[in-house]
Amino acid sequence: MARWEPNARGRLEEAALDLFGERGFEQTTVAAIAERAGLTERTFFRHFSDKREVLFGSEPMSSAIAESVAAAPESASPFEVTAATIADLAEALEGRRERALRRRAVIAANPELQERELVKLAHMAAGLAAALRERGVPDLAAALAAETGLAVFRVAFEQWVNGPDTPGLPALIRSGIDELRNITAE
Amino acid sequence: MARWEPNARGRLEEAALDLFGERGFEQTTVAAIAERAGLTERTFFRHFSDKREVLFGSEPMSSAIAESVAAAPESASPFEVTAATIADLAEALEGRRERALRRRAVIAANPELQERELVKLAHMAAGLAAALRERGVPDLAAALAAETGLAVFRVAFEQWVNGPDTPGLPALIRSGIDELRNITAE
Repeated sequence: MARWEPNARGRLEEAALDLFGERGFEQTTVAAIAERAGLTERTFFRHFSDKREVLFGSEPMSSAIAESVAAAPESASPFEVTAATIADLAEALEGRRERALRRRAVIAANPELQERELVKLAHMAAGLAAALRERGVPDLAAALAAETGLAVFRVAFEQWVNGPDTPGLPALIRSGIDELRNITAE
Repeated sequence: MARWEPNARGRLEEAALDLFGERGFEQTTVAAIAERAGLTERTFFRHFSDKREVLFGSEPMSSAIAESVAAAPESASPFEVTAATIADLAEALEGRRERALRRRAVIAANPELQERELVKLAHMAAGLAAALRERGVPDLAAALAAETGLAVFRVAFEQWVNGPDTPGLPALIRSGIDELRNITAE
């Protein structure tokens, strides 16, 4: 008797972040997450391969990056494409600051998760560089645009979560892009 | 009867890289490294706290970063300071390409070491940003200059080790800086 489980993924994320915060990441089991969410372990594993994936499930972000790059006008320069892509990521995250803050607290408490976060960011940069190369951007420009774009994203993201009074992630990204253009201008 | 042990650190590094390459990082013991180098374990531990530190001993690099930043002329912009700092790092590494290649092969074979490498690079960026703030560079500019500078360094380093025909790391760094200025120019 399959039940209809509205927003199961969101409820599982919410329950997991609660428990990671209360007990610590290591001490939290999938069974406990499912129970807190009022769902079964089976449902959990339909959405996540393990509890780490609740924090790092990066498929949506990778495809978002590929889509943004593909959607940029042909005339856009590699750095403009990059700026537009991280602006799109920012729009998708805006409104989820509370969740981002809680996720970050869990990660900050655990060195292994911090390493995993760096790996995720490196994969995002690699994915962005690959998408730029597919547009015909040469290797060096693609790598530099992607790496520096992700650098702007990371810096803006830190400002955003450290808040409390920030103009919002998309605005911070725009300021970061402007500031980068500014400091690299000769 | 303490013996004079010329270049013990270098011999230990060499022996460790040999063994990591031959047996894998996990399978290599400190005892085996010391034996291969013709030295004692005690000597090993005078130079390194464990075998991972042979690959990641980052103290020299951190102090090199702080020194380069402090040595930059007062009139230099944050990005010029950053460019000079990574150029200094490149000069220090040039001539050690063979070692860098072997080190990289060991790291590429082991996901944990890859994560550790990302942590090291993140620490280098944080150290560079802190050194820039100490010069009075505002937070945002310091963070962006440091992160993008390290991005240029990473990209140039990859080109350098992937060679085989490269103009050398310092030249690749200069091209990377120029290309970054180029792609971010409006």
